[in-house]
Amino acid sequence: MAIDFTLSPEQEEVRRRVRTFVQETIIPAVKDFDDEEKATSREEYIRTLLDLRERAKAEGLWLPHMPAEWGGMGLGHVALAMVQAEAAKTRLGPWILNCMAPDEGNMHTLLHWGTDEQKERYLRPLAEGTKMSCFAMTEPEVAGSDPTLIRTTAVKDGDEWVVNGHKWFISSARRASFAILIARTETDVPEGHRGANTAFLVDLPAEGWNDVREVETMHGSTGHSEIVITDLRVPDANVLGGRGNGHRLGQYRLGPARLAHCMRWVSQAETALDMMVDRALNRYSHGSVLADKQGVQWMIADSAMELYQCKLMILHAASKIDKGEDFRTEVSMAKHFVANSLNRILDRAIQVHGALGYSTDTPLAKMFQHARWARLADGADEIHQMRIAQRVIAAYRDTGTTHSATGGLPL
Amino acid sequence: MAIDFTLSPEQEEVRRRVRTFVQETIIPAVKDFDDEEKATSREEYIRTLLDLRERAKAEGLWLPHMPAEWGGMGLGHVALAMVQAEAAKTRLGPWILNCMAPDEGNMHTLLHWGTDEQKERYLRPLAEGTKMSCFAMTEPEVAGSDPTLIRTTAVKDGDEWVVNGHKWFISSARRASFAILIARTETDVPEGHRGANTAFLVDLPAEGWNDVREVETMHGSTGHSEIVITDLRVPDANVLGGRGNGHRLGQYRLGPARLAHCMRWVSQAETALDMMVDRALNRYSHGSVLADKQGVQWMIADSAMELYQCKLMILHAASKIDKGEDFRTEVSMAKHFVANSLNRILDRAIQVHGALGYSTDTPLAKMFQHARWARLADGADEIHQMRIAQRVIAAYRDTGTTHSATGGLPL
Amino acid sequence: MAIDFTLSPEQEEVRRRVRTFVQETIIPAVKDFDDEEKATSREEYIRTLLDLRERAKAEGLWLPHMPAEWGGMGLGHVALAMVQAEAAKTRLGPWILNCMAPDEGNMHTLLHWGTDEQKERYLRPLAEGTKMSCFAMTEPEVAGSDPTLIRTTAVKDGDEWVVNGHKWFISSARRASFAILIARTETDVPEGHRGANTAFLVDLPAEGWNDVREVETMHGSTGHSEIVITDLRVPDANVLGGRGNGHRLGQYRLGPARLAHCMRWVSQAETALDMMVDRALNRYSHGSVLADKQGVQWMIADSAMELYQCKLMILHAASKIDKGEDFRTEVSMAKHFVANSLNRILDRAIQVHGALGYSTDTPLAKMFQHARWARLADGADEIHQMRIAQRVIAAYRDTGTTHSATGGLPL
Amino acid sequence: MAIDFTLSPEQEEVRRRVRTFVQETIIPAVKDFDDEEKATSREEYIRTLLDLRERAKAEGLWLPHMPAEWGGMGLGHVALAMVQAEAAKTRLGPWILNCMAPDEGNMHTLLHWGTDEQKERYLRPLAEGTKMSCFAMTEPEVAGSDPTLIRTTAVKDGDEWVVNGHKWFISSARRASFAILIARTETDVPEGHRGANTAFLVDLPAEGWNDVREVETMHGSTGHSEIVITDLRVPDANVLGGRGNGHRLGQYRLGPARLAHCMRWVSQAETALDMMVDRALNRYSHGSVLADKQGVQWMIADSAMELYQCKLMILHAASKIDKGEDFRTEVSMAKHFVANSLNRILDRAIQVHGALGYSTDTPLAKMFQHARWARLADGADEIHQMRIAQRVIAAYRDTGTTHSATGGLPL
Repeated sequence: MAIDFTLSPEQEEVRRRVRTFVQETIIPAVKDFDDEEKATSREEYIRTLLDLRERAKAEGLWLPHMPAEWGGMGLGHVALAMVQAEAAKTRLGPWILNCMAPDEGNMHTLLHWGTDEQKERYLRPLAEGTKMSCFAMTEPEVAGSDPTLIRTTAVKDGDEWVVNGHKWFISSARRASFAILIARTETDVPEGHRGANTAFLVDLPAEGWNDVREVETMHGSTGHSEIVITDLRVPDANVLGGRGNGHRLGQYRLGPARLAHCMRWVSQAETALDMMVDRALNRYSHGSVLADKQGVQWMIADSAMELYQCKLMILHAASKIDKGEDFRTEVSMAKHFVANSLNRILDRAIQVHGALGYSTDTPLAKMFQHARWARLADGADEIHQMRIAQRVIAAYRDTGTTHSATGGLPL
Repeated sequence: MAIDFTLSPEQEEVRRRVRTFVQETIIPAVKDFDDEEKATSREEYIRTLLDLRERAKAEGLWLPHMPAEWGGMGLGHVALAMVQAEAAKTRLGPWILNCMAPDEGNMHTLLHWGTDEQKERYLRPLAEGTKMSCFAMTEPEVAGSDPTLIRTTAVKDGDEWVVNGHKWFISSARRASFAILIARTETDVPEGHRGANTAFLVDLPAEGWNDVREVETMHGSTGHSEIVITDLRVPDANVLGGRGNGHRLGQYRLGPARLAHCMRWVSQAETALDMMVDRALNRYSHGSVLADKQGVQWMIADSAMELYQCKLMILHAASKIDKGEDFRTEVSMAKHFVANSLNRILDRAIQVHGALGYSTDTPLAKMFQHARWARLADGADEIHQMRIAQRVIAAYRDTGTTHSATGGLPL
Repeated sequence: MAIDFTLSPEQEEVRRRVRTFVQETIIPAVKDFDDEEKATSREEYIRTLLDLRERAKAEGLWLPHMPAEWGGMGLGHVALAMVQAEAAKTRLGPWILNCMAPDEGNMHTLLHWGTDEQKERYLRPLAEGTKMSCFAMTEPEVAGSDPTLIRTTAVKDGDEWVVNGHKWFISSARRASFAILIARTETDVPEGHRGANTAFLVDLPAEGWNDVREVETMHGSTGHSEIVITDLRVPDANVLGGRGNGHRLGQYRLGPARLAHCMRWVSQAETALDMMVDRALNRYSHGSVLADKQGVQWMIADSAMELYQCKLMILHAASKIDKGEDFRTEVSMAKHFVANSLNRILDRAIQVHGALGYSTDTPLAKMFQHARWARLADGADEIHQMRIAQRVIAAYRDTGTTHSATGGLPL
Repeated sequence: MAIDFTLSPEQEEVRRRVRTFVQETIIPAVKDFDDEEKATSREEYIRTLLDLRERAKAEGLWLPHMPAEWGGMGLGHVALAMVQAEAAKTRLGPWILNCMAPDEGNMHTLLHWGTDEQKERYLRPLAEGTKMSCFAMTEPEVAGSDPTLIRTTAVKDGDEWVVNGHKWFISSARRASFAILIARTETDVPEGHRGANTAFLVDLPAEGWNDVREVETMHGSTGHSEIVITDLRVPDANVLGGRGNGHRLGQYRLGPARLAHCMRWVSQAETALDMMVDRALNRYSHGSVLADKQGVQWMIADSAMELYQCKLMILHAASKIDKGEDFRTEVSMAKHFVANSLNRILDRAIQVHGALGYSTDTPLAKMFQHARWARLADGADEIHQMRIAQRVIAAYRDTGTTHSATGGLPL
C-alpha cells in the first residue's frame, strides 16, 4: 500500500487484451460499414456483429462488469475503466463486449436487487446477449433530477399493479424485451419523501405501453422513446427491490453508470485534443502555423490540463468504488467536470479547425452535438453542483472541516 | 446634437411599418408552410412568396439598404438595424424585403465598386429581385481570415482571365446567376502584401465552375457549396473594382454585412432569453420554481446584461457608419461579442430547459447548432481579437492613450 | 431626436473647462504632494487645497451635481458623467469640485427629502464646502444588501428618539459634522416589509455615538469607521424624509451614487489598459515583444471590449436618469459590470507587468487592492444580479417579453 | 503495485508525527506572538524559536527533504508533500523544520551540483540551521521566464570572475550568508541558446553586492531585495555546477520547489473553503442562510472540485518525482492550476464574507494579497501554459497522440 498511479500486472494484462481485440479484430471487421461504396447487406452486417460477439466470448472478453458466475470477467471498477476506455475507441465496441448502456446498468441493478427468479428470467438473457432492455424513469412534465416529483402511478389491484403515466428519453425502448420502470406507489408518505417510488419489471411489448415516437434531438433521431402508459398491468411478482425502494435502486444504478460514461467521454476528449494539435501543426495563418501562436497554445494547454484532471478523477472514483467506500461525491465531481471538459475541449478543437470544424468532414461536429447531452444526462450540471455543495457543507458541519468532501485524500 | 438613444420619428415610423408588415402580412401568410399536415404544393409555396415580395414593393418596404434611385428605401444603418431585426422575426422576412445575405452585401459592393455597365447588368436584376448571386472567397486549403494566402489564381490571356482554384462554403451558389469571385492576379507583389487579389464577376453556370457538393455541417446540408474551378475564362471587362483591389473590396463589403448578422443574432438571443425566463417560471424542482433559485437568476441576469451590451454596441456601430466615421474596430467588437453572447445565451436557455432543450421540440436545439457558425463566419473570433488588439495598440502608439479604440466615446 | 453618441456643444464645453482646470490648475498645484523629498508642511498643503476650491468656485466649476440656486452647475447626469471622469484623473479632483462621496450623495438626498429648515441647516454648509458629512446604514451583524434586517433601533421618547445599534464601514465619519443615520422605527410592520426604517440627521460629535475604530482593509486603514451607538438621542425634527421612508431614501440616494462610482472606475480601467499596452510594447520575451503575442493580444482585446461596453452602459444609464425614466435596472447592470471589468482589466495589466505589477513601483497593485471593494460596495455583485433577474422576470411576466429589461432600446 | 491513493504505513506515521508536533508543540508555543497585548520581548521570541528547532531535531523532524547522511529525514516527495502541508498550518512551521524557501531549494541544488568542498562549506551550515541563503536570478529589465535574456555578466579575470548586473525580488537576501547567483558567462553561444549562464556561490556581505532596497509589493514590504552588482569578484572555485550550466541548474532546482509551493497553497485554499462554508451557514439574507442559495452552493461546489483536483495533481506529480520519471509537465500543470485555484477560492470566500471579507478582521484579505503573487512567482501563468503546450505538441509529433502529455496515466 502506497500512492500508486499504475495498474497491477493483472489489470494491465486485461487492458492489453482488450486493446488488441478492439484494434486488431473489431476495427478491421467493421471499418467498411460506414463506407457507402463498400456497404454490405443488412444481413451481412448483423452476421458480422454477432460473430464478433462470439469471438469476444471465446476470448473471455465478455461482460467485463459482471462476476464470473454470470459469465463475466469479474473486474473491479479501475480495471473496468480501462476496458470501457479501450472499447469506446470504436462505436460498437461496448456492444460487442456486452457492456453498453443501458443494459450494463440494468445488469448491475438486477444482480443486486433481483430475486433468484427475476435474475433467471431477466438477467440471464441479458448476460447471454440474447435480449436487450431499457430503463424508464424520466418524465417530460417534471424535473428528472427530483425523484420526489414522479407522476407515473402504480395502483395495486389484486395480484397486479395498474400503471398510468408518461415517460420520455427512454433509450433503446424499441429494441428492449423488458423495461425497468419507476412509478409512484406510496400515497401516504409525506411530500418530498424519497420512499414513494417502486421499480417494476415490465415485459415488452405490453398492452398499455405505447411508444408514441422517438424524440428528435440535437444529434438526430436517437432511439430515445417517448412512452404513454395507460392501464398497463404488471404482476406483483415483478416488483424489483421491494416497495418504496425505487429511489434507492435508481441511485445505486446511477453511480457506476455515470463513471462508465466518463470513461467513454475521456476517450472522445483525447481524440479531440489529438485533432486540435494535428490541425495546429498543419494550419498556417498570419505568419506562422497555429501551433506557434500563444493563444492557440493556451487552448491546447488548458485542454491538456482538463483532460489530465478528468483522468485522475476517474481513477480515484473507480478506486473508491473498488474499496467499497462512499463514492457519491467523487462520482458527482467526475461526472460534472468530465462532461463540461468534453464540451470545452470539443469547442476549442472546432474553433482551431475553423469552417472545417463546423462541417461534418471531420467527426468533431457530430461529437459536439452529442456532447451537449452529457451536461444534462444522468443528472444535469446543476443537480451535481447542488449535491456536491450539500456534502461539502455536511462535512464541515460534522467534522469542522471540508477535508473529507474534497476526495478524502491524505493531503 | 446630444447623447440620445431613441430613434428619430422617421426611423420610428419605418420600424413600425416593417413590424406591421412582418407581423400582420408575412407571418400569417407563411405560418402553415412548416406544418406537415397543412403543407401546400411547391407551386403554391412559391406563388405565395413572390406575392409577398410584390406587396413589400408596393408598400415601399423593398431594398431597405439601397438608395431610392435603385428602388430602395435609402435608409441609414441605424434604421437598417431596426429593419433587419424586425424582418428576422420570421425566417423568410429578409428575403421578402430583398435584404438577405449574400445578395445584400453584393448589392452594396456593386453599387460602390461597379462600372455603370456592371451595375446595369448585375446590380439591376438583384435590385429587382429577378436574380440571385454568391460571393466566392473562402478556400479549404488556407485560412480564410488571411487574404494574403488565397491560392486561386487568375492569369491574363488576351482579353480574358483564366481562373483555377478551389473554393468552399459559397452560400447560395446553386441558386446564383453570377458570382463575385476573388482570385490572386499579381505575382510580383511581396509576400503578405494586400494588393495581390482581384475581384471578378462570373456569369453562372460557366464552363470550369464545378459545384462538386454542398458541404454538410453541424446544422445539416446547408446550401454552402464547394467549387472546383478549372480553366474558367472571364472577360477582362468583368474585373470588379480594379486589379489588386480584391482585399479592399472584401473588407468594404464585410463591415456592414457583419453588423447585419449581429442584428439578426440579437433577435435570436432575445427569443432565447424569453424562453429561458418562461421555462424558469414554470418548471418546479427541489422546493421552488427555477426562477426563484439564485443560480438560475444568475443565468438570467448574465444573459440580460450581455443582450443589453449587444444592443448598445450595434446601435453605436451603426451610428458610426451613418456618420461616415471609421467603424472597423466597433464592428469587430460587436461581431465578436454578439456571436459569443448568442452562443452563451442559447447554452443557458438549453440548460434551463433540461432534456427538453436538447430535443427539437423547442427551436433552441436548432438555433444552437446554427449559432456555433457565428463564431467562425465573417472572421473567426481569433481574427477579430487580433484586429481589435492591433487597433488598440496603434491608438496607444499614435496618441499616447487607448481612448480612441474603445469606441471614441465622450467618456 | 435620433440616436446620437456625441455631447451637445454645451456639454462638450463643460467637459473642456473641467479638463482644462484639472490638467492645468489642479494637477500642477498638487504634483509635489506625494513626493517625499519635496513634501511641504501640513499648513501649506491645506492652504493649497482650500485655494484650489476657491478657484474652482470662481470659475463656476463647483458642485456640478447641484442646481444653480444652491451654487451648483445644474448639470444633467450625462454631463455629470464627463465631469466626474475628468475630475477623477487626480485623486483630490472630486473634493476640489465638491462632488466627492459621500457628501455628493448626501446633498442629493437632502435636496430631495429635506424640509426647508433641514436644507438650510445641513445642506447649506455642505454646498458651501464648510462642513462634511457621512451616511450610516451598514451593520456588521446583518447583510447590508437586505435592509429589512437592520437591527439599529430608534424608539420614540417624547420629542426625541433614542437610538441603539452598531454600524461599520461608515466613510468619513471622523471628519463629519453630521450623519444621515438609518434605524428601525416601526415594530408593527410584517417581517420583510420595506417600510420599517427611518432616516435621521445626527449632529456630530454626539453623546452615544462612539467611533470605536477605523476598520482596516485590504487597502490599508481607510477612513471607514465602526460606530457603537448607545442611547443616542435625536430630536424628532431631525427625522429626514418621514417615518418609514428609510429604505426608499436609501434607494433614491444610491442610484446616481452608484453611477458616479462607475465613472471614476472607468477612468481607472482606462489607465490600466494604457499601462498594459505600454508594457506589452516594451517588454521582450521568447522571441518577440509581448504585444506581438496572440494571447497578450487577447488580453488587450478583451479589456478594450469591456471598457467600451462600460462606457456605453454609463452613457445610457445617465441618459435615462436625465430623462426621468426608471433607471434602476440599467444602473444595476452598469454597477455590476463596471466593477467586475475594473477588476479583470487590472488583473490582466498586473499579469502583463509580471513581478513589477505585483510591486508598488507602478500604481497597479494599489489600484487592484482598492478595486476588490467595488464588487462589494453599494450592493454586492450578488444583490445586483438578483435585482436584475427579478426585473427581467417581471418584464416577461408583465409584457410577454424581456425586451424592456435589457435597456428598453429601440433594437 | 496497483492504483492506490493511500499512504504507506511509514508515510502515514511520518505525517502523524509532524502533525502532532505542529499542533501540540509549535502552535501553542507561538500563539501569543501575534497578540499585541501579550507580546514578548525580541529576545524571548528568538529563544523560543531556536528552542523549537532543537526539539524538532531531537524528535527527528528536521530537514524532511534531505538524506539521512546530511541529518535529514530522507523522505520521498509524496511524504514530503504531507510534511509541507502539515507544517504550513502555522507560518513558522517550515522554518522550524528547516524546510522553508529559499533554503530548501538551495540545499537540493548544492546536494546535486556542489563539489565536496562546496557542500562542506555551504550546504553543511544550511543543513545545521546555522546559516541562511538566497537565490539571485530575476532581473527587472528582462523577462524572468526567459533565461536567455539574463543581462548580469561575469567576466573571467585570472582566478576570479568579475560580476556586474541588477537583480530584484531576491528573497531573504538581507539574512543570507551567501547567494547562489546566475550570470551570463558565455558570449560566443548563439542567441537564444540555453548554455550561456553559470551559477556562482557568493559569500555575503561582499564588496560590489549592493542591497539598495526591499521591494514593496501588494502585501507589504516583503524581504524581497533589489540588488545592484558592481564589480563583484568571485573566485573561480565558487562556480557551481560547471560553466554554462546555469539554466539547467535553475530548472533542476525549480521543479520540486514549485511543488512545495503547491503543497502550502493547498493548505490555504482548504482554510478558505472552510471559512466560506462556515460563513454561508451563519449568514442570513433575503429569506435564507447563504448555504441554502443555489448560487452560493455553486461557489462552494466549484471550490471543492478545484481543491480536489489540486490534491490529485500534487500527489501524482510527487509520485512521479519519487519514481525518477520526467515530472516537468505534471509540475507545470500543478503549479499553474493550484496557483489559479487558490486565487479563485479566496476570491469566492471574500465575496461570501461581504465587507467583512474585505476587512482584515479575517485572514482572507491578507491571504488574497499574498495569493496574487502565486500566479507570477516561479514562472508566470503564461510561461507554464507555453511549456505545457510545447510538450503536448511534442508528444503528438513523436507518438501520434497527446496521451503521454496528460499525465501518462493508464487511462
